[in-house]
Amino acid sequence: MPTADEIFKDFREHSIAEFFKKNRQMLGYAGIVRSLVTVVHEYVTNSLDACEEAGILPDISVKVSQVEENRYRVTVRDNGPGIPKKYVGKALAMILSGTKFHRHLQQRGQQGIGAAGCTLFSQVTTGKPVHVRSYTSTAAFECDLSIDTLHNRPVVNNTIDIDRDGMGIIVEGEFVGVKYENSEHGVLEYIKRTALANPQAQISFTDPFGKEFVFIRSSEKTPERPKATKPHPLGLSVNDLLELAQTSESRKLSSFMLESLARTTPNKLNEIQKRCKVDLSKNPKELTWSEAEELVKAIQSIKWIAPDSASVIGIGADQIKIALKSILNPEFISVVERKPQVFKGGIPFMVEVGIAYGGNSGRRVEDVQMASIMRFANRVPLMFDSGSCAITEAVRDMQWKRYSLDIDTQPISIFINISSVYIPYAGVGKEAISQEEEIVDEIKLALMEAARSMQRYVRGRQLKSIEESRYKIVMRYTKQLATDLEELTSTDKKDIEERLEKLVAKHYPKLKQGAENPNEAENTSDSNSV
Amino acid sequence: MPTADEIFKDFREHSIAEFFKKNRQMLGYAGIVRSLVTVVHEYVTNSLDACEEAGILPDISVKVSQVEENRYRVTVRDNGPGIPKKYVGKALAMILSGTKFHRHLQQRGQQGIGAAGCTLFSQVTTGKPVHVRSYTSTAAFECDLSIDTLHNRPVVNNTIDIDRDGMGIIVEGEFVGVKYENSEHGVLEYIKRTALANPQAQISFTDPFGKEFVFIRSSEKTPERPKATKPHPLGLSVNDLLELAQTSESRKLSSFMLESLARTTPNKLNEIQKRCKVDLSKNPKELTWSEAEELVKAIQSIKWIAPDSASVIGIGADQIKIALKSILNPEFISVVERKPQVFKGGIPFMVEVGIAYGGNSGRRVEDVQMASIMRFANRVPLMFDSGSCAITEAVRDMQWKRYSLDIDTQPISIFINISSVYIPYAGVGKEAISQEEEIVDEIKLALMEAARSMQRYVRGRQLKSIEESRYKIVMRYTKQLATDLEELTSTDKKDIEERLEKLVAKHYPKLKQGAENPNEAENTSDSNSV
Repeated sequence: MPTADEIFKDFREHSIAEFFKKNRQMLGYAGIVRSLVTVVHEYVTNSLDACEEAGILPDISVKVSQVEENRYRVTVRDNGPGIPKKYVGKALAMILSGTKFHRHLQQRGQQGIGAAGCTLFSQVTTGKPVHVRSYTSTAAFECDLSIDTLHNRPVVNNTIDIDRDGMGIIVEGEFVGVKYENSEHGVLEYIKRTALANPQAQISFTDPFGKEFVFIRSSEKTPERPKATKPHPLGLSVNDLLELAQTSESRKLSSFMLESLARTTPNKLNEIQKRCKVDLSKNPKELTWSEAEELVKAIQSIKWIAPDSASVIGIGADQIKIALKSILNPEFISVVERKPQVFKGGIPFMVEVGIAYGGNSGRRVEDVQMASIMRFANRVPLMFDSGSCAITEAVRDMQWKRYSLDIDTQPISIFINISSVYIPYAGVGKEAISQEEEIVDEIKLALMEAARSMQRYVRGRQLKSIEESRYKIVMRYTKQLATDLEELTSTDKKDIEERLEKLVAKHYPKLKQGAENPNEAENTSDSNSV
Repeated sequence: MPTADEIFKDFREHSIAEFFKKNRQMLGYAGIVRSLVTVVHEYVTNSLDACEEAGILPDISVKVSQVEENRYRVTVRDNGPGIPKKYVGKALAMILSGTKFHRHLQQRGQQGIGAAGCTLFSQVTTGKPVHVRSYTSTAAFECDLSIDTLHNRPVVNNTIDIDRDGMGIIVEGEFVGVKYENSEHGVLEYIKRTALANPQAQISFTDPFGKEFVFIRSSEKTPERPKATKPHPLGLSVNDLLELAQTSESRKLSSFMLESLARTTPNKLNEIQKRCKVDLSKNPKELTWSEAEELVKAIQSIKWIAPDSASVIGIGADQIKIALKSILNPEFISVVERKPQVFKGGIPFMVEVGIAYGGNSGRRVEDVQMASIMRFANRVPLMFDSGSCAITEAVRDMQWKRYSLDIDTQPISIFINISSVYIPYAGVGKEAISQEEEIVDEIKLALMEAARSMQRYVRGRQLKSIEESRYKIVMRYTKQLATDLEELTSTDKKDIEERLEKLVAKHYPKLKQGAENPNEAENTSDSNSV
């Protein structure tokens, strides 16, 4: 039997690139259809973030072409700021590096894994590098990128300066073990939903059969840019506070707190000082764990203004309404845009919900009508792992029947977008939001609010349908009655029938109209419950 | 508006420890109850693996004690081989390092993340290191461990040599943001299930109220140790083959393949050579991607013997039966142990299924009886993220009604264990198995087989209950008939009644017995359908 020393002689360290090479299903490369969506998702997300950061209205084109069975080429072009030569390797071929990880800023990407994951996936399935052309405002070049997985370092080859031709990047990779499928979980649906949540973007897509789809920009308004924020005191753990203090340039704890934390004023510092014995004039670098612990307790015992809502920006109720109308053409829409809330004490987030009824809403599975749930996080469609997502949890927990709605049988589409500086994803693949209580509760409140205004319409619709059938039954008798009365009174049948019909119609004024024009959509527009 | 250069000046690299510090929910530290289970899970899993590797029958004690609200101390002691001083830091305080990642060997742990994740969780919630005592066969010491997260390097402090006292390690950590709860998802249930799947282990658990639970070793047999295997040719991607070749010491491609791949014989090499033009006498280090591609195609076009099943070892049908009986005391058990299969071409795995009916089987949710599903991977209970797991998928897809079973209403417990050299977990937190088609299908086959043998019993039970009520009805008439016949024939009522009862009993011989002894469990033992 082996001793500890014998067992541990096999001890190794390995890089994060090695790890994800072995476990690429954790990045979303699981299943041939999903893997292709993951590639498109990573590139499109990066392009949207880049354009937003540079204040550019995005113009993105995606092309997927088939090379052979289960082998496809993906090309994504954007009109963003481009990537400087110095950073292109690390940006697209090194896992866990980027501009986004350390920021307090609402963005689609936040981990520095996505695009490097595509490079890894390409090289382990085809042996080929990914090809990039980058056009910045001052230079243009092309190069090939791959990852030295043993050390998680970028390998940049064949760099050539090229002529400038607009701005942005064109990234092209080939992937094996993928498949294009026109389904609810496919690339086209992903792009459609991305367009839905990003009306400021123009997105064109060419599928492997050469068919082109253009999702036209429906809003010329550059979306308001979320502001980078300082962390809110209520969101700080002891460890967070300690780390911030230790990297601070301030000479006093008090000035560090005033400068580095949101909503912190000299008055607040006085309140804190009254509740703890920590010397606020000490050097922040010398703060100890137990002092930080005391500070956090004091912070949590006083009242704070909520985090600045400017750090969280949603799609906007009007934009959601326009998008749902144009894509689903529903009978009725109810959109709710909630105020920003916080989770885990101080991380701001915001929920937007749209419910659409009728038209092309909902989905059919083997001829059974049911609701369709569209999940988004910072405007990025979440297409997989719905089972473990906070959004699904909230939708499931809703007592829909209370609102005269039934998600198992009715043609309903539910659109839910969560915006936050930090989305607590359940996994590295970022397809499900962790079930934080405050987030689930807030989604439920938004759903309830939207459902209430939907209910008025659906109830009216149900009453109308009951009265409609009564009206039809009564009308059926008028003919017989007219014939009978003709015999009894010798008045002309037609005359009696007409008068009876008028009488009945007087009792059901709306219904007659409704029966004649059953497809009216008069409720579509004025239902924004914001 | 910022240019690319301005945007990229914030570019940073960060370590995997920084990443998981920010995203610890991805490691299973989400929710206060689950976080505590995750800690216990990581330590117990490591202890079981260590004992198994050293050929020791595991004796593990777990203690959870409360320090203050949402703050607990966890102590785990095992009788394993211990950890040498030289490796203790990297083993418990460095993410992505260990002895398991590069092996082709069935183990519980496979990533080198778990225990280091506990250290990280402890230090960011309490500021304290984790304390370890290690007793190997030659030395003993204690020390404090934490992680330098910026560089993902271990920090080992206060190392002191201590007296030897048996073998094994004692690890103790304190954690904030956790809660002990005696629920279906709590620590006690986790340990109970671990005991269920590891009958060779003796596990004692002391809960925060001081109550001790001992799960007694029910099998003195050291489980058969899975063998480390060479990769099977059918499981190789082009990239895998290329990497193996490039790190090979062999001088010829042919000898490399004979030595490094399973089931590869000179005959097989001849077959491969007939189907591709790659020169098998070339240096494996010089193999190109396109040559490797050609080789893989050739490999996949010929027939191979399945992977050696010795690399995959399950719990064993008999052990599962003993465990289910002792814990659930069911009326009937059906256990199926399937033969090893492969997924993704060449990774061997094996499915074991136990279905228990009646007794303490199933679970009650708000007084509604339903089935309980116990998922295991390499004998480790999977307690969370059931929604996205291959096992749940297979259970859901089964047409239970075909087997006269109903998982929504009947007292059924379904035990499913997947064993493999490589379990394709859906996430880093390892709570769900990715939905690989071959795995889902194989689980379904195992469930069908187990359900079929269960069906005989359940059907018999249903028929019996129908006949039982018939018998009761007939017996009700005998009294009246006896009274009537006494009047008509002047025979004694008692006499007639007795004779009538005998007559009836003759028609329902089994039933009378059954009605007298309704709790019989005669079907419990002979139902192993292996």
